[in-house]
Amino acid sequence: MKRRYLVLAPDRFAHDAKTAHGVIAYGSDETVGVVDPSCGGSRVSDVVPYLQSRAPIVSTVDEGLALGPTALLVGTAPQGGALPPSWRAEILRAIDARLEIVSGLHDMLGEDEEFKRAAQRAGTTIWDVRKPPAVPLFSGAVYDVAAPTLLMVGNDCAVGKMTVALELRRAAERANVRAAFVPTGQTGIMIAGWGIAIDRVIADFAPGATESLVRYAAESKPDLIVVEGQGSINHPAYAPVTLALMYGAAPDGLVLVCDPTRKRIHGFNTPTLAYRELIRTHESLLAAVKPARTLGIALNTRHLDDDGARAAIAHAKAETHLPVDDVVRYGPDALYAAIAPRIQKERPCV
Amino acid sequence: MKRRYLVLAPDRFAHDAKTAHGVIAYGSDETVGVVDPSCGGSRVSDVVPYLQSRAPIVSTVDEGLALGPTALLVGTAPQGGALPPSWRAEILRAIDARLEIVSGLHDMLGEDEEFKRAAQRAGTTIWDVRKPPAVPLFSGAVYDVAAPTLLMVGNDCAVGKMTVALELRRAAERANVRAAFVPTGQTGIMIAGWGIAIDRVIADFAPGATESLVRYAAESKPDLIVVEGQGSINHPAYAPVTLALMYGAAPDGLVLVCDPTRKRIHGFNTPTLAYRELIRTHESLLAAVKPARTLGIALNTRHLDDDGARAAIAHAKAETHLPVDDVVRYGPDALYAAIAPRIQKERPCV
Repeated sequence: MKRRYLVLAPDRFAHDAKTAHGVIAYGSDETVGVVDPSCGGSRVSDVVPYLQSRAPIVSTVDEGLALGPTALLVGTAPQGGALPPSWRAEILRAIDARLEIVSGLHDMLGEDEEFKRAAQRAGTTIWDVRKPPAVPLFSGAVYDVAAPTLLMVGNDCAVGKMTVALELRRAAERANVRAAFVPTGQTGIMIAGWGIAIDRVIADFAPGATESLVRYAAESKPDLIVVEGQGSINHPAYAPVTLALMYGAAPDGLVLVCDPTRKRIHGFNTPTLAYRELIRTHESLLAAVKPARTLGIALNTRHLDDDGARAAIAHAKAETHLPVDDVVRYGPDALYAAIAPRIQKERPCV
Repeated sequence: MKRRYLVLAPDRFAHDAKTAHGVIAYGSDETVGVVDPSCGGSRVSDVVPYLQSRAPIVSTVDEGLALGPTALLVGTAPQGGALPPSWRAEILRAIDARLEIVSGLHDMLGEDEEFKRAAQRAGTTIWDVRKPPAVPLFSGAVYDVAAPTLLMVGNDCAVGKMTVALELRRAAERANVRAAFVPTGQTGIMIAGWGIAIDRVIADFAPGATESLVRYAAESKPDLIVVEGQGSINHPAYAPVTLALMYGAAPDGLVLVCDPTRKRIHGFNTPTLAYRELIRTHESLLAAVKPARTLGIALNTRHLDDDGARAAIAHAKAETHLPVDDVVRYGPDALYAAIAPRIQKERPCV
């Protein structure tokens, strides 16, 4: 049964609610309202124009209950990380109203004594989407998956790898190709309703967890599997997660997702890599385990005007001789059509 | 205060007790006896000739108590993984005798209700060395460590990366260079008495955990830091841990540790990489974050006879033009002397 989400994002919905935006844009569940007193009384698309939702924004959970939600989505972290008393009160109100609590916070709400007791009392549940289940070690069973698998890789965190995966799936479906999306981070999990936050898995088990996700997606016999990427191969902190996805998903093709204006890894002095360096690095690592070619580049040109976007796309094409587009600005169909004929199953090294 | 270890390894000491052998060979604590009824009555060096220890092997923990141990080391996993009743009884006996329990098993003995209660009753403690402490995200603070740092990398798991690190430290100390060893796996931790099993850290935090280890080692103002390596960069399951060590330790130089007879990654069909491929892969990944050169190669030639060992060393030298030796077979001094002049601090990319 589909959830009817009330999204909790006090003072954050407009600018700092990536998860909420993703769930509204792509989620299989419905968003019936948003709680943010700083823009209470308006509607979602008034505040975030690219979201085609007219769901109302209210000031409190209590107000939101009138919209008939079945679940409260806590998709954005409060400033500073720790849960302020006002958020706590709102979450408790939702629990008392027997809403399911779905949280992408680092802190596990289900392990909080007050929330746990309240949920037991109310007879509802708390789903901490970042909490990984017990997962197996990588076995190589993913090599037997029949559908070709595409993995998103990129020049940094938060450049749009999940969005590109979802847009390519959308384009594939429009081309009558049954495509499965594999979520590997909290927003993707909330959108799809399943998945594992690979960055929260014990390092030894991260490739095995990824393998289990791809095999699960393969059970529905899709024509194509599209895997959400994480981090970047030269990210000083998150590259191990990137590599876990590369070896664990055992992709047949890569789609490179880059913000061309991103010159340094966010939060570090480390320079981002040029397109050809990224392509060479990913392909050479995979060549030693299971080869995969880079099939195309999805640029995130949101920081550029239209001329800038076209110039960036032309530049990337000239540098790499690959299909290049911005799938948000110009839609995913052209990039998908350019990539599709190049998708083919690859064998692991033996 | 140094521990006096009684090592528990029923039926495993001769052939399948890598941790116990490492602790006996290199540990800062003393091993006063080994429990293995299959060779009870003999001494350590009778059973494992390369270990220069005359500690007695006894048949039961009870017998071993006469040797005056202060701690029981559980360093080898029982066949099949689960703790058989006979091991459980022996561990409980040691707890009742107020020995500290030091365990490198995957299963946390300190979380076992029976052991926990027994330890509380006896007033002793259980140290699960694989259990990681809370660790920070990678920050880049490791770039300020003054001592040059060497990281061991290799062509597979279990080829001797820890042993080479310890042997190089030994050679450095003999050359009046104060060298600190950084343990990153359970055996290294038991040998050094501190450290973090990086493979047990949540993937996002694995580089940060590594960084914290190197910074801790730097506090004693050593002249050189030598970091135990893990896995291999093309290991389908463990490569993310390898990469976490590469970015987290931010080494200035690499020592490549290879078993030249290892043609496939243990347990997988994936071929191991040739020397030049390994060098290129590590150096190119690090060049994008903090450059490090490969300074030498330590071969593990235990599966070769003396002629074979010399041929393998000559072959690796011809292939790579690097210093190459087997530091166990021929001692570490020559390789250390060849590497030492090439060690220099490198700066991170900006």
